[in-house]
Amino acid sequence: MLSDLLLQNETKILLVVADGLGGLEKNGKTELEAARTPNLDALAKKSSLGLTTAVDIGITPGSGPAHLALFGYDPLEYEIGRGVLEALGIDYPLKKGDMAARCNFATMKGEVITDRRAGRIPTEENERLCKRLSEAIDTIEDIKVNIRPVKSHRFVAVFDGEGLSHELTESDPQQTGKPPQVIKALAEDAGKTARIVNRFVLQAQEVLESEKVANAILMRGFASLPDLVPFGVQYGLRAGAVATYPMYRGLARLVGMDVLETGSGWIDELRTLRDNYEKYDFFFLHFKETDAAGEDGDFEKKTKLIEEFDALIPQLLKMKFEVIAITGDHSTPAVLAGHSWHPNPFLLHAPQTALTEAEPGFSERRCARGILGHLYSLEVMSLLLAHAKRLKKFGA
Amino acid sequence: MLSDLLLQNETKILLVVADGLGGLEKNGKTELEAARTPNLDALAKKSSLGLTTAVDIGITPGSGPAHLALFGYDPLEYEIGRGVLEALGIDYPLKKGDMAARCNFATMKGEVITDRRAGRIPTEENERLCKRLSEAIDTIEDIKVNIRPVKSHRFVAVFDGEGLSHELTESDPQQTGKPPQVIKALAEDAGKTARIVNRFVLQAQEVLESEKVANAILMRGFASLPDLVPFGVQYGLRAGAVATYPMYRGLARLVGMDVLETGSGWIDELRTLRDNYEKYDFFFLHFKETDAAGEDGDFEKKTKLIEEFDALIPQLLKMKFEVIAITGDHSTPAVLAGHSWHPNPFLLHAPQTALTEAEPGFSERRCARGILGHLYSLEVMSLLLAHAKRLKKFGA
Repeated sequence: MLSDLLLQNETKILLVVADGLGGLEKNGKTELEAARTPNLDALAKKSSLGLTTAVDIGITPGSGPAHLALFGYDPLEYEIGRGVLEALGIDYPLKKGDMAARCNFATMKGEVITDRRAGRIPTEENERLCKRLSEAIDTIEDIKVNIRPVKSHRFVAVFDGEGLSHELTESDPQQTGKPPQVIKALAEDAGKTARIVNRFVLQAQEVLESEKVANAILMRGFASLPDLVPFGVQYGLRAGAVATYPMYRGLARLVGMDVLETGSGWIDELRTLRDNYEKYDFFFLHFKETDAAGEDGDFEKKTKLIEEFDALIPQLLKMKFEVIAITGDHSTPAVLAGHSWHPNPFLLHAPQTALTEAEPGFSERRCARGILGHLYSLEVMSLLLAHAKRLKKFGA
Repeated sequence: MLSDLLLQNETKILLVVADGLGGLEKNGKTELEAARTPNLDALAKKSSLGLTTAVDIGITPGSGPAHLALFGYDPLEYEIGRGVLEALGIDYPLKKGDMAARCNFATMKGEVITDRRAGRIPTEENERLCKRLSEAIDTIEDIKVNIRPVKSHRFVAVFDGEGLSHELTESDPQQTGKPPQVIKALAEDAGKTARIVNRFVLQAQEVLESEKVANAILMRGFASLPDLVPFGVQYGLRAGAVATYPMYRGLARLVGMDVLETGSGWIDELRTLRDNYEKYDFFFLHFKETDAAGEDGDFEKKTKLIEEFDALIPQLLKMKFEVIAITGDHSTPAVLAGHSWHPNPFLLHAPQTALTEAEPGFSERRCARGILGHLYSLEVMSLLLAHAKRLKKFGA
């Protein structure tokens, strides 16, 4: 329906995702409540608040589905396989039709795997091995094979060519003492790909034969890019993404946003935003650090990072966006030391078009009493477009 | 499911729609907040409050879809075309199978349209021309043609007979300097209708040949009534509608309510309600003025009309309905001077069956913190039936 209602105008929208923003109480206060956030608190008073659920009630999302939902793509419909996520995570320029796999270096004795992670070899070792593989294996049949190190024992293999399928079983036996599994086609048109990846496994073993530890590989998470309507077409927006971490840059690229070159810190991201302000109608601005501190279970660090995030708010407001949304992709409570299912604090600042809370404060509990109530992340884009006056009336 | 659970009893339900009720802040207060509404405020304390979304988050509905949703008919499933809406708007007794078109008088020079609105001729001129057309064109093949003036250059043509379809392209070229387009069938069974409407266009041109300004017509918005289960059957209710404006009378008639004769003001509507109280189980009572003031961007006038509306509440309460709902069909904030996507304040007064807020005040912000939370308009009828004890238990 949305695509029939799109209007073009000059309004600008900013979607700020502080990764893993939502939290839980420690000594009676969540990270957001414990943090001193004068800017967010004041902004909340002039904004509408609510809570967003990323995928579904009680469901803890990964970063992929959580961001897809915020961008308005149903994560239950558009699945992002592990191989794709791994490739995006190392900034690999994955394109439609590519088929990516998440691979491990492993140790094999005789016919069986004795260590599925090859003793968690150092990343430098991984880089050396990937170089060896790349030099030895260029194409299999008419398919180009691209091998890229990730970290420790993990690497990515991207297969590039015509007629590839990700409908395959995995080679990882998931336990030691078993041989690597022969990869089988799960769909009629996956036979060629199965043949190629099995040949890749054998060729890699030959190349690695002389290695003491990492003398085999295991493949899983076969995946291709989902086939989705690009963000710009879907919403009639020129969209730019500002993110420092490869995976989030990858997720933005995957939906068709322009991923802007930026540095490695918050200040760099703000500069990139300012420098590109005129060129885009919509910006996705991603701050990673809040999530990392939550994942580490470091309540105090997450609190401190939220305070640093708060200090950036005045600079965002200066840029005169008609609509600013500030939220998380999912919650990452430090007390759980991981992603969680708790809904995300959501702030919608649209001075021309949004009701205001008329009460300061930005936190999980404050948002639960907010004007917007409980929303799904999937509904956020409609809301942003509406508040930017970019949607026509439905019916007469 | 609902139809399997219906119960008959003596309870009476009143659905009051103050059109375009919801608003936005001017100097920190919405129209509802700025208005002195002692009666609504007191009633809110003895009622449950919530917010309703008419069609979907961020979607601004027209009056047609907004009312259909409140009546419990999914506006995405039951579309009301422009022609139907135009016919309803002049109180034309449209019936199933009729096909209505929205027409313009236009000016033609040679083969091309030079003014798509014939200089916006006065309505009296329009009436004269419709009379001329009606006298000259009665039937085409076996189809009766009914021509009715609307306003200025706009009129409605309703085609009445067997085998009509609205699956047609439009004749309006949408710009001057082009000839009227030949209307084409968009469905296999629309060939006959296409032939008839094209003949109508040519016959009208012949009749209007001697006119200086309005010597042609343009046709668009071909539409027929949606095929829906009548309201009375759907809910087991004898339903009466009280509305002064033709379009809302038409929308009520379209879903199968009895549309009651009434006068032109609020006092007339209340009298009609009282006079018919015994005859119906359910009343739809429509107040138009709040929307009109909002559309005009007149914050003060809308505020004043809300105060007048408030003054009527004691009379509604006197009538002893078991369930009274007071809401808008959509928001029409004066600051936006048009319909909007913001959810509607919703008040449910059911002394026997509803929780009470135990706090006075009826406004968008108060409703956002209400007991009922956020609802879709489509869910309202179930709620009203439940509170009227007109629904059985589901399962054992």
